[in-house]
Amino acid sequence: MNFRGAHILSVKQFERADIDRLFQVADSMEPYAHRERVSKVLDGAILGNMFFEPSTRTRVSFGCAFNLLGGHVRETTDLKSSSISKGESLYDTARVISGYSDIIVMRHPQPGSVSEFAKASRVPVINGGDGPNEHPSQALLDLYTIKKELHSKDREIDGMSIAMVGDLKHGRTVHSLSQLLLLYKNITFTLITPNELRMPVEIVSELKAAGHQVIETEDMEAGLMDNDTVYLTRIQEERFTNKLEADIYRGRFRLNQAIYTRNCQPNTVIMHPLPRDSREDANELDNDLNQHPNLAIFRQTDNGVLVRMALFTLILDVTNKVDESAKEVGWYTERRF
Amino acid sequence: MNFRGAHILSVKQFERADIDRLFQVADSMEPYAHRERVSKVLDGAILGNMFFEPSTRTRVSFGCAFNLLGGHVRETTDLKSSSISKGESLYDTARVISGYSDIIVMRHPQPGSVSEFAKASRVPVINGGDGPNEHPSQALLDLYTIKKELHSKDREIDGMSIAMVGDLKHGRTVHSLSQLLLLYKNITFTLITPNELRMPVEIVSELKAAGHQVIETEDMEAGLMDNDTVYLTRIQEERFTNKLEADIYRGRFRLNQAIYTRNCQPNTVIMHPLPRDSREDANELDNDLNQHPNLAIFRQTDNGVLVRMALFTLILDVTNKVDESAKEVGWYTERRF
Amino acid sequence: MNFRGAHILSVKQFERADIDRLFQVADSMEPYAHRERVSKVLDGAILGNMFFEPSTRTRVSFGCAFNLLGGHVRETTDLKSSSISKGESLYDTARVISGYSDIIVMRHPQPGSVSEFAKASRVPVINGGDGPNEHPSQALLDLYTIKKELHSKDREIDGMSIAMVGDLKHGRTVHSLSQLLLLYKNITFTLITPNELRMPVEIVSELKAAGHQVIETEDMEAGLMDNDTVYLTRIQEERFTNKLEADIYRGRFRLNQAIYTRNCQPNTVIMHPLPRDSREDANELDNDLNQHPNLAIFRQTDNGVLVRMALFTLILDVTNKVDESAKEVGWYTERRF
Repeated sequence: MNFRGAHILSVKQFERADIDRLFQVADSMEPYAHRERVSKVLDGAILGNMFFEPSTRTRVSFGCAFNLLGGHVRETTDLKSSSISKGESLYDTARVISGYSDIIVMRHPQPGSVSEFAKASRVPVINGGDGPNEHPSQALLDLYTIKKELHSKDREIDGMSIAMVGDLKHGRTVHSLSQLLLLYKNITFTLITPNELRMPVEIVSELKAAGHQVIETEDMEAGLMDNDTVYLTRIQEERFTNKLEADIYRGRFRLNQAIYTRNCQPNTVIMHPLPRDSREDANELDNDLNQHPNLAIFRQTDNGVLVRMALFTLILDVTNKVDESAKEVGWYTERRF
Repeated sequence: MNFRGAHILSVKQFERADIDRLFQVADSMEPYAHRERVSKVLDGAILGNMFFEPSTRTRVSFGCAFNLLGGHVRETTDLKSSSISKGESLYDTARVISGYSDIIVMRHPQPGSVSEFAKASRVPVINGGDGPNEHPSQALLDLYTIKKELHSKDREIDGMSIAMVGDLKHGRTVHSLSQLLLLYKNITFTLITPNELRMPVEIVSELKAAGHQVIETEDMEAGLMDNDTVYLTRIQEERFTNKLEADIYRGRFRLNQAIYTRNCQPNTVIMHPLPRDSREDANELDNDLNQHPNLAIFRQTDNGVLVRMALFTLILDVTNKVDESAKEVGWYTERRF
Repeated sequence: MNFRGAHILSVKQFERADIDRLFQVADSMEPYAHRERVSKVLDGAILGNMFFEPSTRTRVSFGCAFNLLGGHVRETTDLKSSSISKGESLYDTARVISGYSDIIVMRHPQPGSVSEFAKASRVPVINGGDGPNEHPSQALLDLYTIKKELHSKDREIDGMSIAMVGDLKHGRTVHSLSQLLLLYKNITFTLITPNELRMPVEIVSELKAAGHQVIETEDMEAGLMDNDTVYLTRIQEERFTNKLEADIYRGRFRLNQAIYTRNCQPNTVIMHPLPRDSREDANELDNDLNQHPNLAIFRQTDNGVLVRMALFTLILDVTNKVDESAKEVGWYTERRF
């Protein structure tokens, strides 16, 4: 695909060469995200950060990525105060809002809404999550994290083993990540879920059709063995029609230091899309692993900024100009831990 | 009037020369709004974008206009979280908030509140809408749009014919636009409304006293004939004391392709302050006109950015410095359609 | 203490030399806050302005202070939309959010939450108020105001007399201000409160142990005599377990022009942390004093911007670079009154 001026609506639009290009640019964003240098490449550009559903972390991550490139950010944080509640069509909203900015990130609770919006938008649109449907930048940062973590252990995505654990029925992130992994070769997926929260069969079929091996199990300890990566997920109670039903599954599959030591390889990378539910009855990923060197969950969110910066620079076609506009950082930039 | 340091509280404060000056500056903002050039003329300035009533589009439009001139924007988006809810007077709010910024845009649900606020503000204040009362930048962008649209057809505001359609009783925009049109000569107004939602008699009297011709009718098809501009409005259900009553009028006067072709001049400009209510029972302006070259509704909102940029530069007295600070835009700026 | 890279969590962390240093830097921020000059010293830096409890004025004040130094501001304005509501720990929130910015201001309703957050944050954190517990920048701006106001009258904090009036039980600001005044010598405190809303005994004991004189009284008029400063407070009804109980005390101790003239010294400075409750049944500080030259309440909030700018420059270690990056202001900067 050509990133220049493109909408980013779905993980399905990428080929492997696109991913490689994106991750190469993301790597080059590190000195900026780590505050070694400041870039002004988008000085004067405006991001319309349109969140018609609340999401502090995704919204702030996109906003910071744009600020790190020197741009301005205008925002909205809910649906209630928008004209959509007065009967305005997404077409009209898009025509209006896209007159205000150079690029738009949009989150909206309704599946398909962001694509519909993009059709009428005069500027490029990035899907920041359309309900249970897609959230491509999250899948990209997950994949980028796997690549980086395995690379540091002299391994790669082709040929790896990954366990996915928890609510694989509702988990948008594992669906999208699986979709991206279709672009790679010879992966072993171990899907550890309660029988009722299994990965949708279409996705399992696609994985198999792509030549990957898929094992489905309810036995967590057995499933954890021999994986390069374990990807844990939260029970998505907000996606259950009956919220009480979510309680049945909450806390059923947990990873902690003891279980990790007993079952995982010493090199197994631990991932989670966050937020993790640390309440006692859930606690799918225990705090006793917080200091573990293979716990990649906070590197994951940091990588999100890099991937979003890469998307902005590729879409707005400034990758070659980032370094030109760089200057030294003059303030305190030490980071704890 | 002298724009320098002035509050913009009401359309009544303008004379025709002020309008001419404002529109001339708005014209000169085009290269910046269209991303041909970037201006840093307000680099370091701060806009206090104080919305004590939600309004995504007006808030974002003002914020973008300020960003396009290089300034920072600090915002609030509701009344609930403000000190006003703890018994603070508008006087105190104004004294405090005006210490934080160089200029303030304020929206507040209570008529007269923005003027009261402005009296105590130490910096210039622009009324971004005070309930059913005034919203001067909307009226200015409407008038600017009429001027530009007619100009492209070799016509002008003096001597034109305009039909206003819908809820002219509650529609703040048509009241303010009429007020501005008092500054022009020999206009024919055709006011097409249900009898119960007619334009307030004071306004009709003022129009007549200014030498304009006013026709009031419930017959939409007849009323649409021979106009340079048709200005449609939404039934303002939020302004009805009895919301059920709004249902009686919703959907009664609609414009679509067939009605337009049957009744309007081939050159008639179609306007609407937006949002339009596209739900089936309302639909006062049909989507089948979306591709019509005379549909000016999205040019209208784009013009809003130009008019707001012009207000900022005139009030902050930097009109002569905008071009000096201009630089090339380095990122993707193509616009679809 | 060393400000460089430090968290600002409590007034208890300061020694008198720290305060002197901070106030000296705050003084040097005046030309920037008063728009005589623009600084770009933090151009490219990002403030995470994380308000998990609404507070327009504190949030906007911190945001403007950062903008005045040239930095970007990313914000959140409530708890509801945060991942904390999905069971995320403050540890996780801190690890994630601190990857997005160079410094964080955090407000949160729960006492101790900001300190807990700071422990896991990779960047410096300023406590913007953690429920009834601490709000150090407010106490610092109060102290800074007292210093400046007395200085203009050739007096100083050592040896001064101050009356504190109203709800001294729940008033976080008077607690923190008292704590800071422990660093000074020989102050006379007159605490004017209903018996049930007296200053906590621990604080009174600390003041006495530091060699200060403390008088507690329910007699407002007598208590007002012979003070350099009168510090009024609002009945903090939101901190009462029984809100009806707050009504008993509201409006009991008021200052107005007549009471001031009758009891205060002609030089007595009038302060209030704001918002003041100007509803008729409260009105603890009457509007008839609004034009009084000793009314310092709006200078207080203006000083807040200076103190917050000073905190940012000291923590991010750019105090020596502010003037280097300064440039002329090119826009209208006259201030009314």
